[in-house]
Amino acid sequence: MRPSKRQPDEMRAVSFERGISKHAEGSCLVRFGDTQVLCTASLEEKVPTWLRNSGKGWVTAEYGMLPRATGERMRREASSGRQGGRTLEIQRLIGRSLRAVIDLKALGEVQITVDCDVLQADGGTRTAAITGGFVALHDCLAWMQARHMIAIERVLKDHVAAISCGIYEGTPVLDLDYAEDSAAETDANFVMTGSGGIVEIQGTAEGAPFSEEQFNALLALARRGISRLVELQKMAVA
Amino acid sequence: MRPSKRQPDEMRAVSFERGISKHAEGSCLVRFGDTQVLCTASLEEKVPTWLRNSGKGWVTAEYGMLPRATGERMRREASSGRQGGRTLEIQRLIGRSLRAVIDLKALGEVQITVDCDVLQADGGTRTAAITGGFVALHDCLAWMQARHMIAIERVLKDHVAAISCGIYEGTPVLDLDYAEDSAAETDANFVMTGSGGIVEIQGTAEGAPFSEEQFNALLALARRGISRLVELQKMAVA
Amino acid sequence: MRPSKRQPDEMRAVSFERGISKHAEGSCLVRFGDTQVLCTASLEEKVPTWLRNSGKGWVTAEYGMLPRATGERMRREASSGRQGGRTLEIQRLIGRSLRAVIDLKALGEVQITVDCDVLQADGGTRTAAITGGFVALHDCLAWMQARHMIAIERVLKDHVAAISCGIYEGTPVLDLDYAEDSAAETDANFVMTGSGGIVEIQGTAEGAPFSEEQFNALLALARRGISRLVELQKMAVA
Amino acid sequence: MRPSKRQPDEMRAVSFERGISKHAEGSCLVRFGDTQVLCTASLEEKVPTWLRNSGKGWVTAEYGMLPRATGERMRREASSGRQGGRTLEIQRLIGRSLRAVIDLKALGEVQITVDCDVLQADGGTRTAAITGGFVALHDCLAWMQARHMIAIERVLKDHVAAISCGIYEGTPVLDLDYAEDSAAETDANFVMTGSGGIVEIQGTAEGAPFSEEQFNALLALARRGISRLVELQKMAVA
Amino acid sequence: MRPSKRQPDEMRAVSFERGISKHAEGSCLVRFGDTQVLCTASLEEKVPTWLRNSGKGWVTAEYGMLPRATGERMRREASSGRQGGRTLEIQRLIGRSLRAVIDLKALGEVQITVDCDVLQADGGTRTAAITGGFVALHDCLAWMQARHMIAIERVLKDHVAAISCGIYEGTPVLDLDYAEDSAAETDANFVMTGSGGIVEIQGTAEGAPFSEEQFNALLALARRGISRLVELQKMAVA
Amino acid sequence: MRPSKRQPDEMRAVSFERGISKHAEGSCLVRFGDTQVLCTASLEEKVPTWLRNSGKGWVTAEYGMLPRATGERMRREASSGRQGGRTLEIQRLIGRSLRAVIDLKALGEVQITVDCDVLQADGGTRTAAITGGFVALHDCLAWMQARHMIAIERVLKDHVAAISCGIYEGTPVLDLDYAEDSAAETDANFVMTGSGGIVEIQGTAEGAPFSEEQFNALLALARRGISRLVELQKMAVA
Repeated sequence: MRPSKRQPDEMRAVSFERGISKHAEGSCLVRFGDTQVLCTASLEEKVPTWLRNSGKGWVTAEYGMLPRATGERMRREASSGRQGGRTLEIQRLIGRSLRAVIDLKALGEVQITVDCDVLQADGGTRTAAITGGFVALHDCLAWMQARHMIAIERVLKDHVAAISCGIYEGTPVLDLDYAEDSAAETDANFVMTGSGGIVEIQGTAEGAPFSEEQFNALLALARRGISRLVELQKMAVA
Repeated sequence: MRPSKRQPDEMRAVSFERGISKHAEGSCLVRFGDTQVLCTASLEEKVPTWLRNSGKGWVTAEYGMLPRATGERMRREASSGRQGGRTLEIQRLIGRSLRAVIDLKALGEVQITVDCDVLQADGGTRTAAITGGFVALHDCLAWMQARHMIAIERVLKDHVAAISCGIYEGTPVLDLDYAEDSAAETDANFVMTGSGGIVEIQGTAEGAPFSEEQFNALLALARRGISRLVELQKMAVA
Repeated sequence: MRPSKRQPDEMRAVSFERGISKHAEGSCLVRFGDTQVLCTASLEEKVPTWLRNSGKGWVTAEYGMLPRATGERMRREASSGRQGGRTLEIQRLIGRSLRAVIDLKALGEVQITVDCDVLQADGGTRTAAITGGFVALHDCLAWMQARHMIAIERVLKDHVAAISCGIYEGTPVLDLDYAEDSAAETDANFVMTGSGGIVEIQGTAEGAPFSEEQFNALLALARRGISRLVELQKMAVA
Repeated sequence: MRPSKRQPDEMRAVSFERGISKHAEGSCLVRFGDTQVLCTASLEEKVPTWLRNSGKGWVTAEYGMLPRATGERMRREASSGRQGGRTLEIQRLIGRSLRAVIDLKALGEVQITVDCDVLQADGGTRTAAITGGFVALHDCLAWMQARHMIAIERVLKDHVAAISCGIYEGTPVLDLDYAEDSAAETDANFVMTGSGGIVEIQGTAEGAPFSEEQFNALLALARRGISRLVELQKMAVA
Repeated sequence: MRPSKRQPDEMRAVSFERGISKHAEGSCLVRFGDTQVLCTASLEEKVPTWLRNSGKGWVTAEYGMLPRATGERMRREASSGRQGGRTLEIQRLIGRSLRAVIDLKALGEVQITVDCDVLQADGGTRTAAITGGFVALHDCLAWMQARHMIAIERVLKDHVAAISCGIYEGTPVLDLDYAEDSAAETDANFVMTGSGGIVEIQGTAEGAPFSEEQFNALLALARRGISRLVELQKMAVA
Repeated sequence: MRPSKRQPDEMRAVSFERGISKHAEGSCLVRFGDTQVLCTASLEEKVPTWLRNSGKGWVTAEYGMLPRATGERMRREASSGRQGGRTLEIQRLIGRSLRAVIDLKALGEVQITVDCDVLQADGGTRTAAITGGFVALHDCLAWMQARHMIAIERVLKDHVAAISCGIYEGTPVLDLDYAEDSAAETDANFVMTGSGGIVEIQGTAEGAPFSEEQFNALLALARRGISRLVELQKMAVA
């Protein structure tokens, strides 16, 4: 029995609230149960130095948590003077995942920064950030298309979404919340496209090593979950 | 005529959404028109070094803005490696303002940190942070009282709220939004208690210096505004 | 009775020692009693990025304290790796105050940096820095005029000076020294021009909130003090 | 045909040079072809704060590259003032991987820090660091056993080693060097124990997403490679 | 002919102004011609960690320059976020030099920090700092003796002073000012005690290497100069 | 008797291993007994800002130690966020020493960075770095000559090498190892050219001040040692 009473293959309630920011070209408040991430996509004319005059654009991401997004207050990274390793690792993952479905050439020489700020954390913040960040990015591209800057169907090649899975008390389960995540023996994050291609896999044994069979069970759960997330994304941006 | 079409002494719609955080002992999403600040109050057992074994507690505040809370995306302070002067100035102001209505001796040797994170900015973020931070702080104290840690009426001496005023095209006006703030000749922030005492005054001539008469007009506007804000706080925490 | 034995409306001895630096275009060692601030004004050809090719110049200020300017040695900010919130707040105030009397267009596309370094602190360092910084700035402009770079009467619109006031044991008093400042119930800093316009007001209740009447008494004291400071500035630069 | 002329399932020459440091309790210079990583294991009496008085020890890792370990000189992280995201990500991975085979309770309240410094880079530095770091860690534990501080067979539960795989011009290949890595469509790192359990999987699509079949081919290659690496480790520490 | 018109073995006018700080236990404004360094000696009860409970004290130094102490304004180190290599090198030298004449055991478990802040620079700031720092340190020790904390003759073993020499247009000269220093082929700093022992020698070829004969000529000049500086110190503290 | 059993004028075994880096234009692993420093010389097209369009090049050095190069593990400077004073002091010394034998005009507008990373420390790391850094720099210049970028005999004016000396139990000795260095009363580093010119002298009294006679004895030892080092350099690069 999961602490959340959910079935092994049951995700939490997922919702996307679009257009939540007055200023950003695209924005989305994504909820996976009690996990809430505010995603904004900001369009800027500049690109990183190594892309100047290349005709190609860039999509990047930044990740942060409000100090009391968590059960115990964490020190504000702006105050400690550096972003921690976990933060840098997650924002690199979000950026890679979103770029996997973008044609940077077709985007043209602009940069889109997707900021993912966790308002409340209850497990799965990085996968929620990818899934919701996609919606914010989509809406930023729609904003650009409305201004005849791009043709969205040439820039955006597919959907991308992400989910965590884990082995909890010996059973492979989908979409871990914090209570499950803390106790899981194995923890894995999957990023896949709408057409089922795999973009990123990260699996970690928290306690004992895991077997290939266990891993395949997690992958199967993830495939089902991501397929459902992509459906929800499609309804949200329709 | 104000850009916002408001009367000179008309505030924006103000609302307090309490209990918005699953984790924090007190929390409040405060809105002044399009300005939105998420305030959480976190109780910790530790106090700053200089208060150890003094029997007195501490209330402090931190302030931040999400990178795209503003019209143009700003660099994330965690990434630039330091909090800017404006941020430090504002969080010191919030902390002083909230401490003005707290009996630190009656609080006992604990620390409450009020985090004020601007989700969306449209002028007046610091005054919204003080006004909403009070509600989060109140609810944290109520949480403590419910656990028999304090007697709230001994710790919390009064209400405290804040508002900005300015001289816009020669006319003193109340509660500047961003469009008005950018064009105001003089800009002032007032912090007052429920009983009308003044806690902080900050007035700045953006262009030409201002006169004592002008300043008194701003003070009169602020008094009216803060009196209304305290009423709204009382309804909110009732 | 004030610890300093002064009358409520009596300032400390104030002096300006000009031309104290061999290198700076303008310089002044200002003393308010035992408070000593070394002010230098440095002319540079560059301007901040946002003013390039605007034809407008910039005046900015930096503030620092020698580690043993105070009763107890403080950690050197260069060694701790960041300027504290108090430092940043003060140098922003000095910069704004000096810019209030400068026509940046008439100055032309150059930058003047006024460095205010406290050699010895005994209360009122920020107001001494503004008052003495004005003299250094004046002399830098005179240096420029002597080289036919500007017409000083078009650049420098007025005098500017600053003073602190406070309520000490219930009585409004002028120009607090450290002993008075530490014990004052209310502490306020005023910046005004030679013609009596108000540039900046900052009032803070250290203990109980203050009333409008008390604040007006402080403002009246400040007006008298600043009027005297401007006279002294005029004699100094004559 | 691979740039290295190797067969798809052929690893580079791997060697372990033990006892290379005069000072460290355990040390190993590991080579995977032209990739060279100097690993030292340092025993310290202290543990991280959260483990104090727990009776449990800790194993952690740090990773660095000499500035000219790479084709173009990179800026020294000590000089830029922060470790980059890639560095932090890798050293967290090394630490987790090594801890997977350690019984921290049996280790007792000490800390072992495994420093992995890349002297020369030609692809696969993180997997070489894990594989060689294991040997340094083993030798540190042997050093402790020789001093009757631990029983090594109770602390060290298994071997652990790591290898990279990738899809190069459509073919799954084992142990990418830099030339192959730069051109690979998919890049994956695997960490496994001597008994074949999986500790960590990280797969990333550099270009197009990859399929489950492709991923399984990489996993099969990795299993064979790691099995060979563990044999080499056993010969090295015999 | 030296730019300063001085004879090769002629020092600049040197003066010590003692007791210049209201707060510091010892203080001295030292002038070598136009070079002015404000030295304060601060007594603190704490010692560095490695000396705790050793019964021994510590003497350390910090060095800084006001931004406009030099011909062109330099960036404030507190603002750039780190002390430069030159600053760190100089303050380590000052600390070592002063400790050379202190019996740390007789001092007892306290720390004296000698802050040397350059108000105006015209060459030779580090040697002026050592020479003036000695006077501040002496006065701090006298302050302690007056309070029966130490016996100064047991703590202070000798005088210490420093001077720069250089080869200017082929001629060895004493006490370089900035104009001479910039053009000197060789630049050397000497630190010696009152009894003629050498504490520190630093010689650097700025252009062509120098010979042993040249170096000996500089050493002879330095010996004479330091002997004179010690006389002046003795008169100052008499 | 020296702890190392060496005669007072006996150096440790010194060796140069060239071409040790696959990537660097010049490289050398230098050993002075157990002290090992990996030196790489990297050619870059850019020069520091102040040399742009001057036609002159630059040679600079950076220095680092692996965390466990020493008897006790030291904190990694990249992790602490700043290079320490000792590091900055040493790398400035290495850079000055190498530039002393380079004609920057003949080098042309390029920069060579010599990285000296201590793999194992047993005293004398800075002098080993200079001596080995010369070999790496030589080989980088030879690499450039082979590509017709320079004429090496016009760029490289002489050899340069360095050695430490000290007074150990009253006897002047050559080439201190760590055990001798820790106990030496006086410690000096000498940098000289192949033709016997002096480039840098640094002498420090660790305990009692030293005399001119003692210093001359150290200088004589150094001269002999450096002469031998230059012979070894010549054999190495022949």
